[in-house]
Amino acid sequence: MKTIYIGMIGFGTVGSGTAQVLFEQCERITRRTGVLIRLKTVLVRSPRSLPPQFADVTVTCDPEEFFRDPDLEIIVELIGGLEPARTYIRKAIEHGKHVVTANKALLSESGMQIFKAAAKKNVEVGFEGSIAGGIPVVKTVKEGLVANRILSILAILNGTANYILSQMTEHGLPFAEVLLDAQEKGYAEADPTYDVEGIDTAHKLAILVTMAYGVEVKLADIAVEGISRIAPIDIELAREFGYRIKLLAISRNHEGHFEVRVHPTLVPASHLLASISGPFNAIHIQGDMVGDILLYGPGAGKLATGSAVAADIVDIARNITHGAINRVSSLSYLPEYIKPRRITPISELRCAYYFRFTTVDEPAVLATIAGILGKYKISIKSVLQKTIQKSKTVPIVMRTYEAVEASVVEALAEIDRLPIIVVETVKIRILAEEDADQ
Amino acid sequence: MKTIYIGMIGFGTVGSGTAQVLFEQCERITRRTGVLIRLKTVLVRSPRSLPPQFADVTVTCDPEEFFRDPDLEIIVELIGGLEPARTYIRKAIEHGKHVVTANKALLSESGMQIFKAAAKKNVEVGFEGSIAGGIPVVKTVKEGLVANRILSILAILNGTANYILSQMTEHGLPFAEVLLDAQEKGYAEADPTYDVEGIDTAHKLAILVTMAYGVEVKLADIAVEGISRIAPIDIELAREFGYRIKLLAISRNHEGHFEVRVHPTLVPASHLLASISGPFNAIHIQGDMVGDILLYGPGAGKLATGSAVAADIVDIARNITHGAINRVSSLSYLPEYIKPRRITPISELRCAYYFRFTTVDEPAVLATIAGILGKYKISIKSVLQKTIQKSKTVPIVMRTYEAVEASVVEALAEIDRLPIIVVETVKIRILAEEDADQ
Repeated sequence: MKTIYIGMIGFGTVGSGTAQVLFEQCERITRRTGVLIRLKTVLVRSPRSLPPQFADVTVTCDPEEFFRDPDLEIIVELIGGLEPARTYIRKAIEHGKHVVTANKALLSESGMQIFKAAAKKNVEVGFEGSIAGGIPVVKTVKEGLVANRILSILAILNGTANYILSQMTEHGLPFAEVLLDAQEKGYAEADPTYDVEGIDTAHKLAILVTMAYGVEVKLADIAVEGISRIAPIDIELAREFGYRIKLLAISRNHEGHFEVRVHPTLVPASHLLASISGPFNAIHIQGDMVGDILLYGPGAGKLATGSAVAADIVDIARNITHGAINRVSSLSYLPEYIKPRRITPISELRCAYYFRFTTVDEPAVLATIAGILGKYKISIKSVLQKTIQKSKTVPIVMRTYEAVEASVVEALAEIDRLPIIVVETVKIRILAEEDADQ
Repeated sequence: MKTIYIGMIGFGTVGSGTAQVLFEQCERITRRTGVLIRLKTVLVRSPRSLPPQFADVTVTCDPEEFFRDPDLEIIVELIGGLEPARTYIRKAIEHGKHVVTANKALLSESGMQIFKAAAKKNVEVGFEGSIAGGIPVVKTVKEGLVANRILSILAILNGTANYILSQMTEHGLPFAEVLLDAQEKGYAEADPTYDVEGIDTAHKLAILVTMAYGVEVKLADIAVEGISRIAPIDIELAREFGYRIKLLAISRNHEGHFEVRVHPTLVPASHLLASISGPFNAIHIQGDMVGDILLYGPGAGKLATGSAVAADIVDIARNITHGAINRVSSLSYLPEYIKPRRITPISELRCAYYFRFTTVDEPAVLATIAGILGKYKISIKSVLQKTIQKSKTVPIVMRTYEAVEASVVEALAEIDRLPIIVVETVKIRILAEEDADQ
């Protein structure tokens, strides 16, 4: 029986999880593929011993020795971050080894160079684990929906942010308090910036968009807004309007130009994405042939991500044994068809909005606000005026019809300069109605 | 550029849909694979002409000529039903041609023989379109979750049945009325038996189970119950208990034996499967490594199913061009690891139940019923006694804790013989709590 030896870089959460998956599922994988997949060597920064079940795995701190080992056919990079991951992946490719990674930050930053280098050496780069943990979304976009023009992607891609929003929604708690609790429970990292500010979501969306449309995306072209400024009152008021607030990755394929953005979004309660609570991920994909598809599952976790990394390893192992390397193009389209295209700046997009104005309790306040909105061609769909007892300020909440983002920004700037406005106005975008009708 | 010629059997709904997908997505598929896929010939029963965009497709009624054409590398069978589909697929395999089919009835009946014949001739049989329309569930089980022991499958696999239940739930209408409406709208066939009686769902579940566990399943081993006897009152009372009624395909992998069944099920309203309404499908899969995954999408429709059939065609085309035939085993496990195993008879299973007794309005009725249930070791979890004005009968509704099905059947038989019982007692199974905690 053919044995394929794996070298792994890093033995942290996902690394040890992947090792466990390969170990526990070894026989099952053989029964499905006829191939024996064995983790041979782990490259770590400083000497350490592995748990007893990995007694026959070699641990090394010497990258030169590691990459030179001719036995290793697939290198699995699971240290994350830009360096030394990028150098290691390049080195693996130079040595003619296939690569599997779960490193979304690196791929969204340097993916095109990595895939080009891999194509030149005729090796594969698998990255199922980099998006949405255990959910096979990469395979679905590249193979399952191969005969579709993807029209849109709406996705919850960060489990930490979704967990925090879910807890805020369920218990009416403020962001900071829930974040602290999530950090204590290990759902959020000590520095939660990437997760809560939408950056991690943007990394994943960039990769998805390239695969879905054959479009090269720069991170700088993605408008990104996080959830740290969402207040419990907005969650509550959104609920009164029939919405849940979710941190969504949103992308749309218009003829010739593309929308790619990440921000908190009011999602109608009846939409499946509104039902995704806790640390889960979900990806809603619209294809011109298939219609609407949704994939749901764990967006992180050592074994869930390990399951995705192992699936990539098996995929490459099948290609090695069948002599079918690069049977499926890494980014779904052949390299010559992946091009930079116009990503529409968010200022040009049309969107419906939720506004919460905090005003002094005076007559004619609403008329003043409505007047300015009208001047900027922003039409109001509905208004909710709340009275808060013993408070001198009044929240005025409204939903608008679709308006151009640039006009909205200008209108709110003008409104926020008024003396009747007490604190900066809150603006949250509402999911477009075409997406809301499932 | 390599051109791969397709021969198609049948040009009905899915056939014409697949032709349209191949036609409209031809260039996109080439940009993703470097291969040109062309529908060359359609085999039909009686002479007919195709729509103008298929002007260069040959139409033939002569199966001999069709199967003899050496150009055709992949034969797509889309006529459905057992014969002549089985004969045609065998003939295609004998001629060394790869096969793609969406025929769940045939596969669940004769799949093992077809796959064996194909293995002998070293050709592939793709069947993504046979389960859950456009949802890539076959690929997910075979490849995405390759490194998982599948623990359970809970699925809505029949769009017609789900549409009817959704309409009954939303509008409080009786089954017969909604069915008639569904037939008028084209959502249900003139003979709806397969769809509403759970048979079609059982066909799909049988195929899924084989792929998921490597277990050969006979249709006769699957306990099947449909939705035609579900009444609006049960939907309403289930809702009061916090449930929705769904026609579920349920399968569980116990060490050494397997549960495989199809029946209406009370699903907690908070479960994602409870949110799937209309003619959609959803498959909830639990893997020991990945945890819980859910796939959602259109379970039927000409273009959605065409998208799945086209994905199979592309998969095989990639294998042809890379010389990697049978890179992935048809049924996920290598043939030597697929075995008949014990399917536990439903009479032995433990399940929680919803009962609706229709009794005369007399004192001590509940005590009598509870006494008999107790005798059969069936514990009551909660009871709802409804008073219906101007009615001489009283519905008594209860939820039980888990009990053995055989005892439940006996207990209900004894209860239904009592003079206080006016009509046959309604019994609907409740989703196990281990599945309900997502």
